[in-house]
Amino acid sequence: MLVKLKIKYIQTLGQKKFREEEGVFIAEGPKLVAELLRADNAIVKEVFALEDWISGNQGVIGKTPVTEITAPELERISQLTTPNKVLAIVQQFDTTRTIETTGKITLVLDNIQDPGNLGTIIRIADWFGVEQVICSPDTADVYNPKVVQATMGSIARVKVVYTGLAEWLREEKTVSIYGAMLEGQNVTSMKKINEGIIVFGNESKGISPELAELINIKLTIPKKGKAESLNVAVAVGVVLGSVSL
Amino acid sequence: MLVKLKIKYIQTLGQKKFREEEGVFIAEGPKLVAELLRADNAIVKEVFALEDWISGNQGVIGKTPVTEITAPELERISQLTTPNKVLAIVQQFDTTRTIETTGKITLVLDNIQDPGNLGTIIRIADWFGVEQVICSPDTADVYNPKVVQATMGSIARVKVVYTGLAEWLREEKTVSIYGAMLEGQNVTSMKKINEGIIVFGNESKGISPELAELINIKLTIPKKGKAESLNVAVAVGVVLGSVSL
Repeated sequence: MLVKLKIKYIQTLGQKKFREEEGVFIAEGPKLVAELLRADNAIVKEVFALEDWISGNQGVIGKTPVTEITAPELERISQLTTPNKVLAIVQQFDTTRTIETTGKITLVLDNIQDPGNLGTIIRIADWFGVEQVICSPDTADVYNPKVVQATMGSIARVKVVYTGLAEWLREEKTVSIYGAMLEGQNVTSMKKINEGIIVFGNESKGISPELAELINIKLTIPKKGKAESLNVAVAVGVVLGSVSL
Repeated sequence: MLVKLKIKYIQTLGQKKFREEEGVFIAEGPKLVAELLRADNAIVKEVFALEDWISGNQGVIGKTPVTEITAPELERISQLTTPNKVLAIVQQFDTTRTIETTGKITLVLDNIQDPGNLGTIIRIADWFGVEQVICSPDTADVYNPKVVQATMGSIARVKVVYTGLAEWLREEKTVSIYGAMLEGQNVTSMKKINEGIIVFGNESKGISPELAELINIKLTIPKKGKAESLNVAVAVGVVLGSVSL
């Protein structure tokens, strides 16, 4: 059973302010929760689940505290349109470590607004073996439930750091800074790279002028048809597929 | 002013059954509506808009019938969470023409369920100059408001046809049939193609076994990291970026 106060507490975690104060976030659904329970670096603090999920998942639950709840209770605490058996409170990841850029590809996101885009980009990074995503402070919050959901578990494997991008990139002297722009080198015919920072800009405004100045190599996905733009997550996929494989 | 009956009529167009009976669909927002008004092959039957949109868009409106409405009226007929100045009733496109596959790339979608994915795929096709997308009958409806919105206007330029895929592909003898699968040729290192059918499968189940048998050349986006899968729209972007540019 869930006491009222606990329901209220979980509901407040829909807001960034409370998530930050508590240092936790919400993850939902059997696949995502099981993935987080299995991940080495994710600390699942508490699980709330229907009986059938609990009986089928003893193996992954281990010593994590689990509360059995009813479907109506799940509906009250869930952020999903269609609640799905299980909800977990997970500790936010440590993102204070220094950013190391040599010998790897680092994604940089300048003011990505849409939570679905951010989550999908984290999932794409994970697919292509990109270990870290550096976001401007005005990018969507990685612990927003819609972002968490869209990562499909990759949130446990990709390091996401928020920092002032211009200051950081100005100090970055070791690797090349690439940027996805409207004009630049054809990304589909360039040499593969093993190292570098790749910057992607806001859904409608692109890379801000302040950052654009700091780009060493401009990349472009050539357009053959008439669409005005590509979705930014799709652009990340096309660029990583072209330069990193 | 909008009479009650008209409001009711527009609201019913949220449902596929009524859209089909009427042969129309709904498009919303200044950008999308202006794009459809300008497109050669789109027939906008009627526009409902706030006064400031009408006064600013005389040029694109031409002879299209326009009804000035109030913000509360727009809210009643809109399918968007945040209604945006203008709503248009647009005639469905003619998709009965025979499918011609020589000399071009054709996308085939097998049971794509998510409207956002379908719309994004149509937008990607338009970016890469792919003129036609052939969908299984169980793929999301292209005139679903969420699909229309996600195409960002590309719905006016890309031909979308629904047909039984297995029967059609069995008769297709002129071009190669490629399929995005978990195992196959590395798509990022293969030769560019100018012609062919590329099949993408359902978000969780992939290409159905019946269609998988008909694939001549299997394509794969190699995985370097640990994500279980890529979003299907992102996969379409990576494949088209790799094989068609």
